[in-house]
Amino acid sequence: MNATGMLRDGALQGKTIIVTGGGTGLGKSITRYLLTLGANVTICSRRQSVIDETAAELTTELSSVEEAGRILAVPCDVRNPQEIETVLAQTIETFGRVDGLLNNSAGNFISPTERLSYKAFDTIVDIVLRGTYYFTLAVGKYWIENKIPGTVLNISTTYATTGSGYVVPSAVAKGGALIMTKSLAAEWGKYGIRVNAIAPGPFPTKGAWDRLFPEPLASLMDPTSRIPLNRVGDHGELANLAAYLLSDYSGYITGESITIDGGEVLMAGEFSHLRDVTDEQWDEVARSIKQANRASKG
Amino acid sequence: MNATGMLRDGALQGKTIIVTGGGTGLGKSITRYLLTLGANVTICSRRQSVIDETAAELTTELSSVEEAGRILAVPCDVRNPQEIETVLAQTIETFGRVDGLLNNSAGNFISPTERLSYKAFDTIVDIVLRGTYYFTLAVGKYWIENKIPGTVLNISTTYATTGSGYVVPSAVAKGGALIMTKSLAAEWGKYGIRVNAIAPGPFPTKGAWDRLFPEPLASLMDPTSRIPLNRVGDHGELANLAAYLLSDYSGYITGESITIDGGEVLMAGEFSHLRDVTDEQWDEVARSIKQANRASKG
Amino acid sequence: MNATGMLRDGALQGKTIIVTGGGTGLGKSITRYLLTLGANVTICSRRQSVIDETAAELTTELSSVEEAGRILAVPCDVRNPQEIETVLAQTIETFGRVDGLLNNSAGNFISPTERLSYKAFDTIVDIVLRGTYYFTLAVGKYWIENKIPGTVLNISTTYATTGSGYVVPSAVAKGGALIMTKSLAAEWGKYGIRVNAIAPGPFPTKGAWDRLFPEPLASLMDPTSRIPLNRVGDHGELANLAAYLLSDYSGYITGESITIDGGEVLMAGEFSHLRDVTDEQWDEVARSIKQANRASKG
Amino acid sequence: MNATGMLRDGALQGKTIIVTGGGTGLGKSITRYLLTLGANVTICSRRQSVIDETAAELTTELSSVEEAGRILAVPCDVRNPQEIETVLAQTIETFGRVDGLLNNSAGNFISPTERLSYKAFDTIVDIVLRGTYYFTLAVGKYWIENKIPGTVLNISTTYATTGSGYVVPSAVAKGGALIMTKSLAAEWGKYGIRVNAIAPGPFPTKGAWDRLFPEPLASLMDPTSRIPLNRVGDHGELANLAAYLLSDYSGYITGESITIDGGEVLMAGEFSHLRDVTDEQWDEVARSIKQANRASKG
Repeated sequence: MNATGMLRDGALQGKTIIVTGGGTGLGKSITRYLLTLGANVTICSRRQSVIDETAAELTTELSSVEEAGRILAVPCDVRNPQEIETVLAQTIETFGRVDGLLNNSAGNFISPTERLSYKAFDTIVDIVLRGTYYFTLAVGKYWIENKIPGTVLNISTTYATTGSGYVVPSAVAKGGALIMTKSLAAEWGKYGIRVNAIAPGPFPTKGAWDRLFPEPLASLMDPTSRIPLNRVGDHGELANLAAYLLSDYSGYITGESITIDGGEVLMAGEFSHLRDVTDEQWDEVARSIKQANRASKG
Repeated sequence: MNATGMLRDGALQGKTIIVTGGGTGLGKSITRYLLTLGANVTICSRRQSVIDETAAELTTELSSVEEAGRILAVPCDVRNPQEIETVLAQTIETFGRVDGLLNNSAGNFISPTERLSYKAFDTIVDIVLRGTYYFTLAVGKYWIENKIPGTVLNISTTYATTGSGYVVPSAVAKGGALIMTKSLAAEWGKYGIRVNAIAPGPFPTKGAWDRLFPEPLASLMDPTSRIPLNRVGDHGELANLAAYLLSDYSGYITGESITIDGGEVLMAGEFSHLRDVTDEQWDEVARSIKQANRASKG
Repeated sequence: MNATGMLRDGALQGKTIIVTGGGTGLGKSITRYLLTLGANVTICSRRQSVIDETAAELTTELSSVEEAGRILAVPCDVRNPQEIETVLAQTIETFGRVDGLLNNSAGNFISPTERLSYKAFDTIVDIVLRGTYYFTLAVGKYWIENKIPGTVLNISTTYATTGSGYVVPSAVAKGGALIMTKSLAAEWGKYGIRVNAIAPGPFPTKGAWDRLFPEPLASLMDPTSRIPLNRVGDHGELANLAAYLLSDYSGYITGESITIDGGEVLMAGEFSHLRDVTDEQWDEVARSIKQANRASKG
Repeated sequence: MNATGMLRDGALQGKTIIVTGGGTGLGKSITRYLLTLGANVTICSRRQSVIDETAAELTTELSSVEEAGRILAVPCDVRNPQEIETVLAQTIETFGRVDGLLNNSAGNFISPTERLSYKAFDTIVDIVLRGTYYFTLAVGKYWIENKIPGTVLNISTTYATTGSGYVVPSAVAKGGALIMTKSLAAEWGKYGIRVNAIAPGPFPTKGAWDRLFPEPLASLMDPTSRIPLNRVGDHGELANLAAYLLSDYSGYITGESITIDGGEVLMAGEFSHLRDVTDEQWDEVARSIKQANRASKG
């Protein structure tokens, strides 16, 4: 079975969704699937050329899909409220309204924290956190004023809950955005607005991944030694989940962050790393422990 | 849009799933949807007559659905390993194999804890927790031995994480089962086995709900005062999520518990109950706080 | 027994601790206890007059405590790295070194989120989150360079984990700071640096509390209806915990956030609000449920 | 500074505390400290000889401590309600009343789960979970009836929250007991009863540790490769925390589980294991990433 393609055809017919950072990587993969399901999508990013190319590429690619939605590309720095309002205005002008927002723009430095300047720290927090609450505030005000029961979906990470060394500005920003998810879900539920998040594990994008993880990081991030399911994720698997959460099918889910990581975060368990012990070693361990338990109490 | 019916037709074709407590309530609703999607389902419960009736009813109801799966009813007390093994054996005999297990059997006492006997406490823990790990152990051993990448889905609750007064035996049992979910996902991932959970908020079943919540409990459980989305859930919404997690479309999700509760658990937020403050009151509050902030700093 | 005064005399002798926002409220109460235990303390805040008064007051108050530490007041806007570095430099000049940092500065707006401007949102996030990571980055770099095994303690909130409506900028900021706590604890542990947090429930400061919660908020925040222990906290209780976490006695605790809230956050439990049901009502409920269980299965 | 000895002398004067499993290991270390602080302690365990020896040893050891409490040893299998009630009755007879309960009895199998029988699984769950709720139920009923504001402290683990492979029965039981902690704190707060937990990382007891972790487990559990603070814990550090939580000084903390693990659980962070990257490697990584970022945007 193909990993993508869970939802029935036309599941997002009539919906318009804004995807920040929709020009590349996972944002692009999700955009493709939303279009396939009939949604109109506005993608935005700081670099006009990137989103224009993506818009052209996806339009061509989906020209044979009868029910596919349309795509609009609007440049936007998510740290700038005026540019956000322009995206919103142009989307409404083009598609009539906005039903969903996918906060997907991100940035990251993989580095010991003490090597970062105040400014470097700010850069990541501003893109990831400020950009997320600016965009959500803009769209939320529009929805409340127009009585539209819209849906926000934030791309989070597992370290938004666990924390993580070596990506601290990103962790701080994603941690803040996750709490925004829960807080606004609690507050705006009475307007019919839902706010959810996805915490993906490793979903590599060809090319980008190698640039992000030069050696020795690449080896240290080897999925087969760190992920219970022994593999990285497929973009289609994430797209299924995102489409579900942006659709009305998930209408009773709000304030939730869903982890899709092959079990990566579970390696937190104090003894979970014993997966490297072989069957023969377990036999030996069983014998030793049995002896020990005989000598002492459990 | 109808709440149920998210997945494309035939999404579970060729799968066989065991549903404990599948004769009534939510278990029955999920069973119906799994059958519709093409799965064969074994339902089990202590009371033979209940599951026989459900099997007959669903068979009739789905006779016109071309791709619908078949249903088998086997009596089983989940606290009894031998009866569990009988369910497993009969399912394999009838359908050839088992791919999924939905641990859905439950019991509950709504009561101050100090009014419970040791035995009453045990009764709930044995059905909910012991039954869950017995059944999972039985099916897991079968999967590992036969190299089948099966999937377990446990019906949990939000209070498996938050805890809750007045349902303490159930909370203890569901709390333990949730940690089993994460633990086995970590350990059995290498066999391709996935283990997940759903934490539903209020999904009333007509009749059963009134019996469970006599007054004054019913009024105290009024969803419109306690749930951000101002409503209870629809069985179809839960069935969508369950079918997704039992299908291969969720192949990279493991060890996760997904809350579907209209935001109920978010009312934990220290100030979330201020949703009862009216617009006019907020105007007044804003004036007062502005004055206070002028006089002192935050 | 007096709530304060847990640690043995001199427990912080020889330590120097910086307390942001140490001029008023809880920050002042903690400062008093740290001084009593022998620590030298630098308090800082935007308003020079406030911290000067507090320094003078505490110096007089503790003049009879033989082992009491000394206090230094340095003005500082925590959103300004240069002012932070001045606090650090003056503390080192005065006391010789820095061993601890208590990030306690805060700000909050209690308001529906859609009533906030981008700028209002930024103001809170900048004080609470940016101020926290700026100060921690400055002190952490100093510790790593000078091989000092320092300790950071962040004043968090329970809604840094649960989220909360009506205080969303603060929730976002505290949520981010909590993940910083865990992330830096993971990363800087190898330098002997510990990073922890306290999540206090309601610890009113006379005067300030009334200004923060004008009616009808005050009634809605009534502790006896919302807090399992039926009361608000005492500043001494928080001071004990803060002193413990800043002392070497907690040397194996890091990356932890400790909630001290009388159980307030536990009201998240789906049935915990049934505490309002009387004994007589429970008798009636027990009868009804027993009847229902007889008619149907559990 | 000695790790133990935080609380001021006599901090537990007049209190009586029951410690299950108090004859060996951590339970014995905590018992020693509680006695030192003036508490009377009843220790119980299945093996009479072990607790008798410990009682004799601690009595001798503390004979010179003027304010030390007295110790009573009563045999008890925590799976047996009648034996629990005997412990309670004898404690009240000897010391007049009971103020605190430390649920510390435990058992564990380190093994792949599919190697366990139903019965082996039950054994651990019965000791750890059933024993905990039986004892808590017994003591709680006594407190409510006698209007005593008692305190329960449960020895938990970090995997009661994260889950863990290879110790699944223990994880299930500890997970259930943790939710009991939160649930009863919510429910019994109105009686002044507090319920808390401690989640310790590795606190080896000489001898016992080697028996529990034969090779290759011992090497895989090496703290310096897995624990941010690069060391195991000291019994005195745990005793400080336990005494604090059993004392009135922690009177506003309830329903909380405090982790004391040197940051072990934080290694869950997706990038936290990059602590093994050297300074020189980070220099190289910084160069590679800077190049990559130049070529593409984050």
